[in-house]
Amino acid sequence: MQIGLIGLGKMGFNLALNIHQHGHEVIAYDVNPGTCKSIAEKGIKTVGSLQTLAESLSSKRIIWLMIPAGELVDQTIQKIKQFLSVGDIIIDGGNSFFKDSVRRAKELEALQINFLDCGTSGGTSGALNGVCAMIGGNRFAFQQCEKLFQDISIPDGYLYCGNSGSGHFVKMIHNGIEYGMMQAIAEGFEVMHKSDFNLNLEHVARVWNHGSVVRSWLMELTENALHKDPDLTSIKGIMHSSGEGKWTLDTALENQVATPVIALSLMMRYRSLENDTFSGKVVAALRNEFGGHEVVKS
Amino acid sequence: MQIGLIGLGKMGFNLALNIHQHGHEVIAYDVNPGTCKSIAEKGIKTVGSLQTLAESLSSKRIIWLMIPAGELVDQTIQKIKQFLSVGDIIIDGGNSFFKDSVRRAKELEALQINFLDCGTSGGTSGALNGVCAMIGGNRFAFQQCEKLFQDISIPDGYLYCGNSGSGHFVKMIHNGIEYGMMQAIAEGFEVMHKSDFNLNLEHVARVWNHGSVVRSWLMELTENALHKDPDLTSIKGIMHSSGEGKWTLDTALENQVATPVIALSLMMRYRSLENDTFSGKVVAALRNEFGGHEVVKS
Repeated sequence: MQIGLIGLGKMGFNLALNIHQHGHEVIAYDVNPGTCKSIAEKGIKTVGSLQTLAESLSSKRIIWLMIPAGELVDQTIQKIKQFLSVGDIIIDGGNSFFKDSVRRAKELEALQINFLDCGTSGGTSGALNGVCAMIGGNRFAFQQCEKLFQDISIPDGYLYCGNSGSGHFVKMIHNGIEYGMMQAIAEGFEVMHKSDFNLNLEHVARVWNHGSVVRSWLMELTENALHKDPDLTSIKGIMHSSGEGKWTLDTALENQVATPVIALSLMMRYRSLENDTFSGKVVAALRNEFGGHEVVKS
Repeated sequence: MQIGLIGLGKMGFNLALNIHQHGHEVIAYDVNPGTCKSIAEKGIKTVGSLQTLAESLSSKRIIWLMIPAGELVDQTIQKIKQFLSVGDIIIDGGNSFFKDSVRRAKELEALQINFLDCGTSGGTSGALNGVCAMIGGNRFAFQQCEKLFQDISIPDGYLYCGNSGSGHFVKMIHNGIEYGMMQAIAEGFEVMHKSDFNLNLEHVARVWNHGSVVRSWLMELTENALHKDPDLTSIKGIMHSSGEGKWTLDTALENQVATPVIALSLMMRYRSLENDTFSGKVVAALRNEFGGHEVVKS
């Protein structure tokens, strides 16, 4: 197959290599000429514009977007669609909000261009060696691309989830669960780190990866991180987030589903971005007001 | 080696078979003659009393307790210790509270009897085919039993954690993390279950077990459960707990560690045991008092 790939970031770069290694022809484009040059050195054809990309692909075109979620996806679709034809397929492999994917599929349907939303999990190593792909959209368009999804995934690592949006929806929930699992692991390790037992936390993570109930890829990553830096002294506990946790919570609120653990995992991330909080000041001020409890002056 | 095993419940029964299959001599005791009979049919020697158990073992004795945490462990130790000699080893393989294990080790040390606390993870299938064992206590006593721990565990599935109590402490934290991971998974699946996408949740769990970030044994168990009963209609969402989650939280509070996810995982379990709550009544009553909002009469 022939695939036009837009976006050569950490995920897109490795995915291009992954697709290429499976014998497909990748034609890649990135706004950054430097990354185009790097991937060209790996034997992958690159082009200098979206128009050239579209013109280099024979119909029916398959174009894979691997770019940051949000406006950039809309802008890129706006630009490229003028060079596309009836029956072409755009796959958004990024972490887009599922409602955006529903809208984009509808907009492109009017032009008889197919749109597939593909949640892509597995991190950068997965992008290179085999992802877990969750795909939504027109079933016929999916079937046309199925060989591609099969090749870039680990065995049994792709699923047609259903209607447009369902691929990104399932990926969003995946990430919401990931937030909760990570926070649970993190809290347990902090309790151990503050205990009087002189535990080797790397060894604990390692033994848990051998037969325990909590064995998991995340626990293997915990083991790796603690191997490199047993007390994680070299990094700060600032936890950024890229949207899926918040969207999971938005969706839970919309459908009135109680999801306290995912909610608090997200809020602990927000808290980690602050050195001090106004809510902390409010509580300190109130304790001072009613009980004369000392406050720390700023 | 020769091991005296006390307690043939779901875990103990399978562990007896596991030890036996590794060429060790197991002499088993259970208060229930029926389970003694069942294990005897598998070729394992049983005895009718703790005294006979102690007398059947040659010194230095190794006695493995696989009984419910709490008073029963103290009672059993009280009874058996009178038949034991200097240098014998008692291993508590159950889910005892680590502070109890610290105390028991100290009490038995006065009699020069060794006490090892062993957190045993992997569920009933693990007990049969290979556990993950976390061991605390005197290092010399551990070394005397290391071959046993090695044999009953999966490869690399045992760890000497340190001083008395550390094995059960690490197992406690393991279970606290397990609570949070399970609640996170559960919340994500409930959001999907209530979504308009007609998702096949078993297939979602399955694809996540192939290359995703949340791949884990718990996700495999989720896949199994959804395979048997896609909407889990045959069971109620009542979530019992056996202590380790609460102890993790107790320990976090004692050391002032913020563990909101583990805390709420535990509290969601408590909530699941109630049909209605007094706190719900209080909020409903207050909404009625200040705003005239309707209440549901009981």
